[in-house]
Amino acid sequence: MKKLVAGAICLFLVVVLGSVAAAQFAKPDDAIAYRKAAMTLVGAHFNAVGAVVKGEKPFAKEAVARDAGLVDTLMALPWEAFAVAGSDQGATRTKPEAIKDKVGFDKTAKASLAAVAQLASAAKGGDPEAVKKAFGEAAQSCKACHGAYRK
Amino acid sequence: MKKLVAGAICLFLVVVLGSVAAAQFAKPDDAIAYRKAAMTLVGAHFNAVGAVVKGEKPFAKEAVARDAGLVDTLMALPWEAFAVAGSDQGATRTKPEAIKDKVGFDKTAKASLAAVAQLASAAKGGDPEAVKKAFGEAAQSCKACHGAYRK
Repeated sequence: MKKLVAGAICLFLVVVLGSVAAAQFAKPDDAIAYRKAAMTLVGAHFNAVGAVVKGEKPFAKEAVARDAGLVDTLMALPWEAFAVAGSDQGATRTKPEAIKDKVGFDKTAKASLAAVAQLASAAKGGDPEAVKKAFGEAAQSCKACHGAYRK
Repeated sequence: MKKLVAGAICLFLVVVLGSVAAAQFAKPDDAIAYRKAAMTLVGAHFNAVGAVVKGEKPFAKEAVARDAGLVDTLMALPWEAFAVAGSDQGATRTKPEAIKDKVGFDKTAKASLAAVAQLASAAKGGDPEAVKKAFGEAAQSCKACHGAYRK
């Protein structure tokens, strides 16, 4: 069982964070624009779930599942763009530590990815209480990364 | 068979374009930022396929399938944001016609959605020639919409 879990974690690291090696951005500004775009969409759909969790909007199972699923899908995108040298300069709130402290950054990124996967799973299940709990944990994981690596 | 096709098209319209009714943006600027973000990501992954089609990068089946799949997924997102009243003003290249000529706009949008679905399908299949053909058709559908509705 331990081997299976370790294998799954390794596969996760290779698939999700391993793409960091395959940078495809012609210049740092392209990487900044790309990750900002991804985070804008993540934020929009995360806040849509948040509005439901806070009771500002009624709990519509399909809409919540769609929004949480999109957060999960979109959260896979920005990491490659964070690894681009020089992309901590210019029109960005990313701290230089996000590139310099790669081990720490990847760790908080990984925690967020796990949290949004959990949120998507809870939303698919359709239990409002489970969604609320998973949303709170995901929000904490966002804050942890932003607190450490965002200006 | 005709009924089946008609039914499928109706379902498509309800699922993809029907979400237009459920606008979730507090103000026009939020809608502009959202659709710009979606189009930035669509462009990045579409150009990644383009680089392969043009021979600038080798044909790596999995990467092409991932990029084309993301284009398909992301292209479902911006339409709701285009339907927001007043979002043809401000920091946007969207022409007022995109809101005024809703029937025409939805028609070009639908054509693009079909073209990128075809591209994703071709990329999944892994035949470089099929990908090249589908990429060309998708590029034409982008140009048609931008030509008519983008400043």
